[in-house]
Amino acid sequence: MSSNTLAPNEVIHDLLGFKNRRIIQRTDRFHFSLDTILLADFVRLTTRQKKILDLGTGNGPIPLFLSSKTKAHITGIELQEDMVTLAKRNVALNQLEHHIDILKLDIKEVSTHFKSSQFDVVTCNPPFFKVPLNPHLNDTTELSLARHELAIDLPHIAKAARHALKQQGALYMVHRAARLQEILVALSEERFTLKRARFVYPKAHSEAMMVLLECRFDGGLECHFEPPLIVHDDQGAYTKEVQTIFMNREEAL
Amino acid sequence: MSSNTLAPNEVIHDLLGFKNRRIIQRTDRFHFSLDTILLADFVRLTTRQKKILDLGTGNGPIPLFLSSKTKAHITGIELQEDMVTLAKRNVALNQLEHHIDILKLDIKEVSTHFKSSQFDVVTCNPPFFKVPLNPHLNDTTELSLARHELAIDLPHIAKAARHALKQQGALYMVHRAARLQEILVALSEERFTLKRARFVYPKAHSEAMMVLLECRFDGGLECHFEPPLIVHDDQGAYTKEVQTIFMNREEAL
Repeated sequence: MSSNTLAPNEVIHDLLGFKNRRIIQRTDRFHFSLDTILLADFVRLTTRQKKILDLGTGNGPIPLFLSSKTKAHITGIELQEDMVTLAKRNVALNQLEHHIDILKLDIKEVSTHFKSSQFDVVTCNPPFFKVPLNPHLNDTTELSLARHELAIDLPHIAKAARHALKQQGALYMVHRAARLQEILVALSEERFTLKRARFVYPKAHSEAMMVLLECRFDGGLECHFEPPLIVHDDQGAYTKEVQTIFMNREEAL
Repeated sequence: MSSNTLAPNEVIHDLLGFKNRRIIQRTDRFHFSLDTILLADFVRLTTRQKKILDLGTGNGPIPLFLSSKTKAHITGIELQEDMVTLAKRNVALNQLEHHIDILKLDIKEVSTHFKSSQFDVVTCNPPFFKVPLNPHLNDTTELSLARHELAIDLPHIAKAARHALKQQGALYMVHRAARLQEILVALSEERFTLKRARFVYPKAHSEAMMVLLECRFDGGLECHFEPPLIVHDDQGAYTKEVQTIFMNREEAL
């Protein structure tokens, strides 16, 4: 199937706020949402960074977002064959073949596939949920893989990132706030330290839903907890800050 | 010196919002501040809890605060002799000798002084700062002990709490947000899990300064991150929520 011919279970979206970036999503599969956009926005890139690796890239939203913030080469790896195909079509649709590579690769294979210390930045929007003891998982296995830790868990993500990153490289992740202790313990075991974090609250008086994390390998132990990121105002509309993240991205480029 | 005769370097304060609670503070020493008040407010007590231990009680503000929220017996331990004396005078000043015991005890001696698993709740407002590599500490050693980890550090606090607490007992702590990863790793090593946490932001658009933590021994790994606690509004006045914490405590009793 060519990059811009859609199957019945596919839709094509503009990538919010990105001029000329579009993405095909499967209606019956996991697709990117607020967490992905907030993670891409949270990533801080410099011109010195030359290589970025996105672990579990799905249909490729993070490489597509980041490609308009950086000239660094981006590699997205994904386990699921049909998601790999979709991510490649999305790269082609945006004529970004020179900028983004998509590989079919298990995150557990990072340490054998890549030489160590090749990447300046690793990003990951991992499965948010542990595998339940009595699983009542989504009936689509592929969707479950993206939402539950069936194929990958936090210690393996930390190991893959440690292998891939240069000294002082940065690992960016978004995750459920509720799992912060597990995340930090898994990262500590691979000698990552949290340098910057931001909690995402659905409303100003709600519990935090997600947390955005920037870690460094062998960094110091002090972390900046950025101001709370409030998604909706009391009326349920997106806050100005989130609207800015959605709409005014070009200004930040 | 009797409980209510003040030395020249002492002042007497009303405990905010607590009818009939007063506290003597040394002007030349560490004294309780916002972090102490927020911690005391963050502690959730039930009538089933019978024994509370406050580690590093200083002049006793946390036992004094908690004594109006609970009938449970409260023990405050403190390393510094003159702070122990002051805490005892504060207990007497408020006629709470039946409710609060103050002991001169090093936190490191908790495991030899107390039988294990005696307490339902442990509270701690520990020294916030690591000992600098090139120390330019406050010239008063006693003040340094309260602010820097000269006498006690996070792993020892976690060990003491683990010894003192019953199964399913709760450890409450306030600390600098910047050190969260260290705190959670130290707690994990003693099998404490974070159950409830709240970040404290000086203003809505400031970085988090402190974090309030509730941990359980061998609890599940899911944590509730409560809504952000904003201390000041944009004009620098205390927010309504903080004013409520300061002034309306009796209503919660």
